[in-house]
Amino acid sequence: MTIKANPERALRDLYHLRSIGTYKTGVHRPTLSEDDLITRHWLVGELKAIGHEAWIDGIGNVISKTPATGNKLLAGSHLETQSHAGWLDGALGVVYALEAARAVVEAGRKDIGVEVFAFADEEGHFGSFTGSRSLTGELTEADIDQRADRTTGRPLRQAIADAGLSGVPRHRVDPARYIGMLEAHIEQGDWLESQKLQVGVVTSIVAIWQYKIVFEGVQNHAGTTRMAIRKDAGVALRRFCQRVEERFPQVCGERSVWTVGKIDLEPGAPSIIPGRASMTLQFRDADMATLLRLEQTVGELVDEANAAGPCTVSWETMNKNKPALMDEGIQAALEAAGGVYAPGKHARMPSGAGHDAQMMAQLMPAGMMFIPSIGGISHHWTEDTSDADIMLGAQVYADAVGRLLAR
Amino acid sequence: MTIKANPERALRDLYHLRSIGTYKTGVHRPTLSEDDLITRHWLVGELKAIGHEAWIDGIGNVISKTPATGNKLLAGSHLETQSHAGWLDGALGVVYALEAARAVVEAGRKDIGVEVFAFADEEGHFGSFTGSRSLTGELTEADIDQRADRTTGRPLRQAIADAGLSGVPRHRVDPARYIGMLEAHIEQGDWLESQKLQVGVVTSIVAIWQYKIVFEGVQNHAGTTRMAIRKDAGVALRRFCQRVEERFPQVCGERSVWTVGKIDLEPGAPSIIPGRASMTLQFRDADMATLLRLEQTVGELVDEANAAGPCTVSWETMNKNKPALMDEGIQAALEAAGGVYAPGKHARMPSGAGHDAQMMAQLMPAGMMFIPSIGGISHHWTEDTSDADIMLGAQVYADAVGRLLAR
Repeated sequence: MTIKANPERALRDLYHLRSIGTYKTGVHRPTLSEDDLITRHWLVGELKAIGHEAWIDGIGNVISKTPATGNKLLAGSHLETQSHAGWLDGALGVVYALEAARAVVEAGRKDIGVEVFAFADEEGHFGSFTGSRSLTGELTEADIDQRADRTTGRPLRQAIADAGLSGVPRHRVDPARYIGMLEAHIEQGDWLESQKLQVGVVTSIVAIWQYKIVFEGVQNHAGTTRMAIRKDAGVALRRFCQRVEERFPQVCGERSVWTVGKIDLEPGAPSIIPGRASMTLQFRDADMATLLRLEQTVGELVDEANAAGPCTVSWETMNKNKPALMDEGIQAALEAAGGVYAPGKHARMPSGAGHDAQMMAQLMPAGMMFIPSIGGISHHWTEDTSDADIMLGAQVYADAVGRLLAR
Repeated sequence: MTIKANPERALRDLYHLRSIGTYKTGVHRPTLSEDDLITRHWLVGELKAIGHEAWIDGIGNVISKTPATGNKLLAGSHLETQSHAGWLDGALGVVYALEAARAVVEAGRKDIGVEVFAFADEEGHFGSFTGSRSLTGELTEADIDQRADRTTGRPLRQAIADAGLSGVPRHRVDPARYIGMLEAHIEQGDWLESQKLQVGVVTSIVAIWQYKIVFEGVQNHAGTTRMAIRKDAGVALRRFCQRVEERFPQVCGERSVWTVGKIDLEPGAPSIIPGRASMTLQFRDADMATLLRLEQTVGELVDEANAAGPCTVSWETMNKNKPALMDEGIQAALEAAGGVYAPGKHARMPSGAGHDAQMMAQLMPAGMMFIPSIGGISHHWTEDTSDADIMLGAQVYADAVGRLLAR
């Protein structure tokens, strides 16, 4: 069964979403902000217009149901953005799903359907995967009580109340309802672009292992304390980072990445020797053996630093998940669709970023499709993809949906 | 003329001040906070009790005048503290001056006198040397309009109004009134303790040269951006610091110190490659040639980093003053007093910290006396000095005052 998207319509929808919470050439739509809610209500309206039942659940997820009695595919991504970030991250996957749902309806098929979801808070303003964890049943009421907006401090409960969602039930996904889940996304890296490709068929989503590393020294006066007796926690932190930069390349995999994204010196004043310093160290890979080698190296470097002194070092795990393997059948469907619309321009690749698909992969076969990101820029308002790549992707996506639903 | 202090009384005064704004074993008395004002009013009362005219001026300085017609010495230090810091930093020099003023009065000398000042904001909650810059005439009304508390953001104008000082004139020091200025302080380093000495005669106050160094890279996604194409501003910053640690020891002086006290990564999130990073680099020395060598090295390292890439580096001067030489006559008086009360236990030394005395040195002969700091700890609530050293210092100080006033 061939499903044909209307790629111009998908592009118009994306430009419409870009006009809600515009920031420079990107958007600023934190989870459950006014602009975020405007986009969710817009999506509910679009879904109702094609005969879906659609609503926002008690955590902010947009849910839809078709009257179809046959094969149903769960499809979507997220609508909120990182702060002052890009216009396609999340929105693209929602619009592709919406466009495929419309295309199925317009093809006159009432037996099958695409049920479009916009997962709340994939970007983690209130913690990690708030919406999809709620759909899987992982998120407890107690979790909701504890979470708050990482920027504004607004409690999640308050944000839910402000959105008019207090008392609205949280939806749970019934895996038996679906043949699988499909998510499209911009690559957020430069690999497709560097290889002159237009479609990425995702094989796995990397695991993210993240640690907080704390250095304890002695806070003191930056003028009167001789260099020889200092215990400068900031110096200890920088030496540790230097050793990471030396050792990680020796033990990493081909696509491993690692990042020190956050550093805090305490008290953080020009004239005070830092008595305490902390940093986050995060690494990602799709291979468990590589992840374990990198973690072992962190432990060795902590031991080495403690043995060398004069500061002490401790570390604690902040996050440690498993790589999520994408379904082989969905990969095959995406590849076949790529063969029709982008012959020689598609390839299999892992995802270096986390996505809602990895949460859904716990419940059902899940797959992901990537389109290129110009310059690989992401989580920044300059993020972009050419209109041509966006429109081609919508067509490949709809074609793959048709193949999956026809089974 | 021999002036004898009452060292127990000085110690009692210091314990009294320690009880105002107590934080653990230290104190928390930011400039123009309620507790800071309590100590200023207390000092005014003590000075009036010995026949001084005393008041708080329009910027928060405590000023005093004696009826003496002969030699007068300006003496004092500051009463406010760094946040959650030590009980002696500042307070010691004020109490020694108060005790010497009392001792002169109790010696029946009405011709000579010690005029005690408590300089406002030496600790720079509202910027650098707010009170003493006002006394020298350097601080303009426009400066006051611009300054605000670095922690709370409270504007200086508001703080002055809250203290009931709006409309009160700011005092200007008349250099012709004084034979010189004397300030006592804890060393804030460990040199006296390490040499088993009890009194330091300060030869000069080091200059502080401080820079802001900014690294510009490209902000990007920490999962999808390959290591090979990253332009991580945080990595560039750490490499720069490493080069400072390698190069500075080759060009510094024997007592040079340097510190990176503040680092900011932007946006500062675990999953985002920092696109921008900044740091403060401060160094101190009493020798101009050494200061110039260190500054030249910073410039060379900036050029080196820009040549190496992939991030760009820029630097700007935040602060650059001259070393302040202490008066030889005052040094001699302190040395003679040390010879009486601490024979073999005193030595000449530079000050690694900035002090109000360096501002007064612009107007008149100025000198400083140090007593030991246990473990060299400073700007921290665990800062301390033994009661015995405190009491001995009060006696040495008063004796030196007597020698200076007798000239």
